[in-house]
Amino acid sequence: MKIGLLGHGVVGSGVRQIIDTQLTSDIKKLEIKKILVKDESEITDDRMTLQYEDILNDDEIDVVVECMGGLEPAHTFITDAMKKGKHIVTSNKKMFATYYTEIMDLAKENNVAVMYEATCGGGIAWIDALNRTKKVDNILEISGIFNGTTNYILTKMHESDVAFRDVLKDAQNLGYAEADPSDDIDGLDARYKIAISSYTAFNQHFPIENVICYGIRNLQQQDVEYAKKLNATIKLLATARKNENSLEEYVMPNMISNNQMLAQVSNNFNAITCESNTLGSALYYGQGAGSLPTAHAVVQDILIIENGNPSTNTYEEGIIDNQIHRGKYYVRTKRPIVFKDIIEEEISEDAFLTKEVSLFEIHLACVTASDDSLFIAEVNV
Amino acid sequence: MKIGLLGHGVVGSGVRQIIDTQLTSDIKKLEIKKILVKDESEITDDRMTLQYEDILNDDEIDVVVECMGGLEPAHTFITDAMKKGKHIVTSNKKMFATYYTEIMDLAKENNVAVMYEATCGGGIAWIDALNRTKKVDNILEISGIFNGTTNYILTKMHESDVAFRDVLKDAQNLGYAEADPSDDIDGLDARYKIAISSYTAFNQHFPIENVICYGIRNLQQQDVEYAKKLNATIKLLATARKNENSLEEYVMPNMISNNQMLAQVSNNFNAITCESNTLGSALYYGQGAGSLPTAHAVVQDILIIENGNPSTNTYEEGIIDNQIHRGKYYVRTKRPIVFKDIIEEEISEDAFLTKEVSLFEIHLACVTASDDSLFIAEVNV
Repeated sequence: MKIGLLGHGVVGSGVRQIIDTQLTSDIKKLEIKKILVKDESEITDDRMTLQYEDILNDDEIDVVVECMGGLEPAHTFITDAMKKGKHIVTSNKKMFATYYTEIMDLAKENNVAVMYEATCGGGIAWIDALNRTKKVDNILEISGIFNGTTNYILTKMHESDVAFRDVLKDAQNLGYAEADPSDDIDGLDARYKIAISSYTAFNQHFPIENVICYGIRNLQQQDVEYAKKLNATIKLLATARKNENSLEEYVMPNMISNNQMLAQVSNNFNAITCESNTLGSALYYGQGAGSLPTAHAVVQDILIIENGNPSTNTYEEGIIDNQIHRGKYYVRTKRPIVFKDIIEEEISEDAFLTKEVSLFEIHLACVTASDDSLFIAEVNV
Repeated sequence: MKIGLLGHGVVGSGVRQIIDTQLTSDIKKLEIKKILVKDESEITDDRMTLQYEDILNDDEIDVVVECMGGLEPAHTFITDAMKKGKHIVTSNKKMFATYYTEIMDLAKENNVAVMYEATCGGGIAWIDALNRTKKVDNILEISGIFNGTTNYILTKMHESDVAFRDVLKDAQNLGYAEADPSDDIDGLDARYKIAISSYTAFNQHFPIENVICYGIRNLQQQDVEYAKKLNATIKLLATARKNENSLEEYVMPNMISNNQMLAQVSNNFNAITCESNTLGSALYYGQGAGSLPTAHAVVQDILIIENGNPSTNTYEEGIIDNQIHRGKYYVRTKRPIVFKDIIEEEISEDAFLTKEVSLFEIHLACVTASDDSLFIAEVNV
């Protein structure tokens, strides 16, 4: 099976390395024929080209592997490739979540496979686990740590008394966080991933903006100290739950009791739980990012196409209703007055614990407070 | 695809229930045509028979699902079925581990698939994870909690000051432990599972007796108290490691630091880690036993056959060498004198911590001590 690789950055170069190494009999069936790179300076190999058309118009290429990132030109390139009857493997969560229905429709029209394991959870075979489980079972709930950058920051802030901005700077120096870290620390990266996971698990689509989303940008050591007093750890969780006629979808920091497995997931690892009817609780843990783990996921996807066994998702429009889930919340805000009816316990001048309220109710209060320094976490101890 | 089901106990009845429910489009491709039961009193359905030949000689039956347990007649029945060209799915770890090479040879000769997800880790798609990983990667190490019964006992003994025999009795009343619990508490069940996992991961076979095996039969509250002082939890781990020319294989209680995920795996859950070259560390967690989770694994195996995509294992004879791994060990014995050269720290009159020694060395000392009340645990804090 001949492959055209788009992008030769962190993930793309890992894909090239794994396939070129030809370690196993399965990998020996694969060959990277052409690689699209950004500029002359990247060309180190005679398979490399600056012209996408070299890949698009090569009829020997069966699969286009997109590891470019960003919306364009990745979106246009894979669209054109599908129209030419080429299968797609992508690691690009933002593009895939944004154009999900269009991509699924095009795949069906052109009878090609679209695989996207590497968009969620890096090296964790998470999308495969969902596809496998839903063949037999009703999936009821997905929840977990989908973002390695924020988990690294949270781990460091729990280990020692360091400020958010200093840990973020360290993470940037180590290559765990981008120069503009907004997608990670505001929860947007986790939101793409919970959306893609939900589209897969429930065969439903919804606009990603409907997912309630809180990040850890405003986290301070006083918040960490409070979690520690509860014998808990703060983790950024993304959660999806299927109810009879609707879905709940949210990204929210959580104070999780230390005797829960998710509390012990450290550094840039990811861990995702899935609850389904006959299987009960399952948890998948692994490298959430990094060149080789993510590239491994891409190569597994190529092998599934090679073996003629890709899954296909259908979709109908799903309705998000976040009024059902109820919890207690830790809130720190300059405007506690907005929350006065739902405060159960004051922790300090600007921080408090709420009574049990619906997610929608607390979200409404946070929106009303309009405080760009607000930090909120669900408390599960 | 038509199925002949052997056995209608805990797992078999779960398989019948999942397939009869016809929940998904994939399950709708499956039909249970005949069910072998033990005696007249079990017959509640006109598919049930007391004659194995009714299944063996039914040419419409493509797959024989064996959920009988025990060596015979399960072994003879699946052997005959393979010779008739029927695919096999089994949940029977003891039989499968015992006759592994014979079964693999027969499967090859008769060009049939043999699937065994349900033999290890119940509902965890663990064998599938190994098969998936080894397509791309070198698997280096497997380690984890493979036995739910002992994990339940260990959890209860850490939660409160109860004696082993009382917790065991509770576990038996709850149906978590057999009337004769030896296979579980002596580590033999975990030994079958680590052997089957290793056969799969490394494409090597070895006699199961070569796996060093210690259980928790002699565990006392004083051992638990010592672990707690170390801020650790005792877990029964089975471990396999691939070295250049040999394998290490052992089942051994471990005192694991509480900030490790495995320490937080409670009750009858299983959790297994896999370390491989490109993927790094992965962990899989789920229901290790129980009717529906294990039956779910069986049904997944049937679907893999239905989709024409089963994996096949090759094997060569593997060499076990347990002289490489080194660790510190907690030992409680009536004969500490045997260990005098390797004691680092005395804990009580009959318990001590060793210096770092090879697994082979500590095993030799334990064998020499010939103390049937001895308890040993590797210390990893």
